[in-house]
Amino acid sequence: MTDLSVRPRCLFVIFGATGDLTKRKLLPAIYQLKLQGQLPDQFAVIATARKEYTDESYREIAKEAVTQYSGSTLKEEIWESLCKQLFYHQLQFDEDDGYAGLKVMLEGLDDQLQTNGNHIFYLAVAPEYFGEISDRIEKFQLINQDRGWYRLMIEKPFGNNLESARELNSDLTRVFREENLYRIDHYLVKEMVRNLMVIRASNQIFEPLWNGDYIDHIEIISMESEGIGLRGRYYDKSGALRDMVQNHLLQMLALTAMEMPDSLSTTKVRTEKVKMLRALIPIDEDQISNQVVLGQYEGYLDEERVKADSPTETFAALKVCLDHPRWRDVPFYLKTGKAVVSKMTQINIQFKRPLGTSYLGDVLQSADPNRLIIKIQPDEGFEVVFNTKKPGTLDSIMPVSMDFCQSCLVEQNTPEAYEKLILDCINGDASSFTHWDELEATWTWIDKITDWAYRNPQEVRTYPKGSEGPEAAEELLKRSKDRDKK
Amino acid sequence: MTDLSVRPRCLFVIFGATGDLTKRKLLPAIYQLKLQGQLPDQFAVIATARKEYTDESYREIAKEAVTQYSGSTLKEEIWESLCKQLFYHQLQFDEDDGYAGLKVMLEGLDDQLQTNGNHIFYLAVAPEYFGEISDRIEKFQLINQDRGWYRLMIEKPFGNNLESARELNSDLTRVFREENLYRIDHYLVKEMVRNLMVIRASNQIFEPLWNGDYIDHIEIISMESEGIGLRGRYYDKSGALRDMVQNHLLQMLALTAMEMPDSLSTTKVRTEKVKMLRALIPIDEDQISNQVVLGQYEGYLDEERVKADSPTETFAALKVCLDHPRWRDVPFYLKTGKAVVSKMTQINIQFKRPLGTSYLGDVLQSADPNRLIIKIQPDEGFEVVFNTKKPGTLDSIMPVSMDFCQSCLVEQNTPEAYEKLILDCINGDASSFTHWDELEATWTWIDKITDWAYRNPQEVRTYPKGSEGPEAAEELLKRSKDRDKK
Repeated sequence: MTDLSVRPRCLFVIFGATGDLTKRKLLPAIYQLKLQGQLPDQFAVIATARKEYTDESYREIAKEAVTQYSGSTLKEEIWESLCKQLFYHQLQFDEDDGYAGLKVMLEGLDDQLQTNGNHIFYLAVAPEYFGEISDRIEKFQLINQDRGWYRLMIEKPFGNNLESARELNSDLTRVFREENLYRIDHYLVKEMVRNLMVIRASNQIFEPLWNGDYIDHIEIISMESEGIGLRGRYYDKSGALRDMVQNHLLQMLALTAMEMPDSLSTTKVRTEKVKMLRALIPIDEDQISNQVVLGQYEGYLDEERVKADSPTETFAALKVCLDHPRWRDVPFYLKTGKAVVSKMTQINIQFKRPLGTSYLGDVLQSADPNRLIIKIQPDEGFEVVFNTKKPGTLDSIMPVSMDFCQSCLVEQNTPEAYEKLILDCINGDASSFTHWDELEATWTWIDKITDWAYRNPQEVRTYPKGSEGPEAAEELLKRSKDRDKK
Repeated sequence: MTDLSVRPRCLFVIFGATGDLTKRKLLPAIYQLKLQGQLPDQFAVIATARKEYTDESYREIAKEAVTQYSGSTLKEEIWESLCKQLFYHQLQFDEDDGYAGLKVMLEGLDDQLQTNGNHIFYLAVAPEYFGEISDRIEKFQLINQDRGWYRLMIEKPFGNNLESARELNSDLTRVFREENLYRIDHYLVKEMVRNLMVIRASNQIFEPLWNGDYIDHIEIISMESEGIGLRGRYYDKSGALRDMVQNHLLQMLALTAMEMPDSLSTTKVRTEKVKMLRALIPIDEDQISNQVVLGQYEGYLDEERVKADSPTETFAALKVCLDHPRWRDVPFYLKTGKAVVSKMTQINIQFKRPLGTSYLGDVLQSADPNRLIIKIQPDEGFEVVFNTKKPGTLDSIMPVSMDFCQSCLVEQNTPEAYEKLILDCINGDASSFTHWDELEATWTWIDKITDWAYRNPQEVRTYPKGSEGPEAAEELLKRSKDRDKK
């Protein structure tokens, strides 16, 4: 538990303070944290962008944004109090001009708030500016290696392949040490993703069974009913493998598969995740079409800013194996798609059929295996599928499902992702952010697949909007289900 | 699954056909089986008792009984059809006179229905008549060892201690072979008691954990809110240990603790149960007051047909251990009582706290252990208590309970106990009846405790009606809970 009384004093500097992300997510999150009393008392937000605002005029547009996006009625006294901690500084990211003035502003606030020089920089800008900004952060000494701490928060995408990720990383690590880089993966702060470790560790009836002796296979699924909307410019260069699999799905895989860390510390959790991501067995070129199914929804080519003959995949299903004794012969099925029938993210852990007894004979063979389903969104909770005797029969079995719906607990207020991200960064807890070692392992693994996809555009199958995706994806899993029946 | 087409033809002979048991239970059960098409076509019921009835006049009182007790509106056409299979024969159990006539009647029906001499005898009479009747069944050749089969169904109590049980058994086995004795234990046909084996065998997430490595302790509880009512004559000589523990509670213990049998066959299930009942560790005289708590509800002495200074226990709580590698150091807590706060029978399986990880540290220590609760009556179903992360916190744990309420499934019609008992007997499935070896093991074990109780009437503590029973019973279990906290 975090001790609120020792929450570190710091300045929170936003680059891109007039953009959508800041208005929709960052400012409302900061307001909510203020409302909940979660912010340090000695704290200020410095918003920077190209446009000309005074503190007062920026506070006006900030208030509008918070009112519109915070999801609750603005409490005036809280807002008034937050306003006094909110400042604006005009700045062209890729020009030196404004940085010296920013330095003066930060130094003034540091003195006033006795922050000891603790600074968080949030880059709410396109990745191509990351290097420009971090270079100038150093050049204009917005950080001081001898005082306090400094942290950089950035959004995905972190590169487009291993090479570009390395370049970007090298740009950033010229200025920031790895432990000060807070690379956001929104999935890692989702309630039920964070809950994964707790469910494993705190339930004696799961923990001993969490391996290939008892688990048959695991599905990690993240589906969206919407298409790409207006994100064509970004998405068409990315595709499902880079946009979803390399980061969110493989992160969920790592959290599901990893050995239980000794503690919740950032280093221990990351170490265990990296071990599993490095254990990803590369998919051989000659097996790839048996293990990977790509799709593109009908109508994708008509979306705005998408190339007319784009082979970009909007759907990916993969059979993944790990070179690790815990998971020998346990396939992980990853599946993600846009414009499919329903919006749903979940992890399905399917146990093996009961072994070691011939009791109930043929009846048992036909029973469903036990399943643990971790529901991540839109519902949050978990479900366990058991078998029980069909009432009134001697030995017929029927499955029953038991459900814990966390999001149904109305009294529980699940914090928004950005509240958790900002708070974690203030507290120096990077366990829900991505380490470079994880990026390196996942890009290395995914590059083989994206390279193959680039050379084989014919492998991308079209599927109707609102469907389950390409039929071939169902086949991937079905082959495993057939295996069950053996 | 039983193949209905081969359900054996037979005659069903009731001794005590005008008594309460026949009217309230047997006739309604036979009617229900008829209604469901579960009876063999070639089947007849021969009701015998002291009173003078014709077939017609008996059918009249039988119809009244079924109408009153069957719980559903009588279907005339079903009843008419059953009537043709229902006959009355006047008989004084302990006099020879009527038996020759009964033989003639059975032979006539055997011929007519081509039953091959298959006979079931149901002794709905006090146990003191069991020997009288079985002797005459033999003497008047109501059974024919060379043709078909014959089975005897009897109710509890089967003796009052090992010695009297042996005598009774010896009376019966002069005539009936062990495999033809169907000793009823009503708890064994309760839906969720039968479900115990299925839940264990068909759930991979329970079966590997079903031992002392993962289970901390097990509670087997059967409580009744009613007092003894008008059963004083029987109950005052019996008490909770003989009336409930020796049979129902130890049977549930055996089913919970036993190794998984190779199959559902009578012999295999009984063999496994007997192994566990023989593994009951006798409670040493010098430890008995630490392991056994007896009680008597206030007002018991005022009940009808109870001795004024009766020391009979209406409540018993016991800590029981098994000399078996699967259950080393796993206490079983048995608890039963009358006139307590609620009516409830259930088996609570409490798992150990998660081991092998220091993850979450102190928080984990304070988490509740996982529990599997098998609810037997009045609710039927099972419940699993898990731990999950408290939403919005990083590492706080909260227990959540998931419930499968079988009795809530309105479309599921749980058959009445007597329907199952009669059907099992017709089908020759004795797996839910008690074998002599089980009786011998349980009486041997319980006699030590009843002997001690007899010599130490001061050990029976009074408790208020509607309470949880004597406080000392709570202490028994609390000592184990303290052990958890270590």
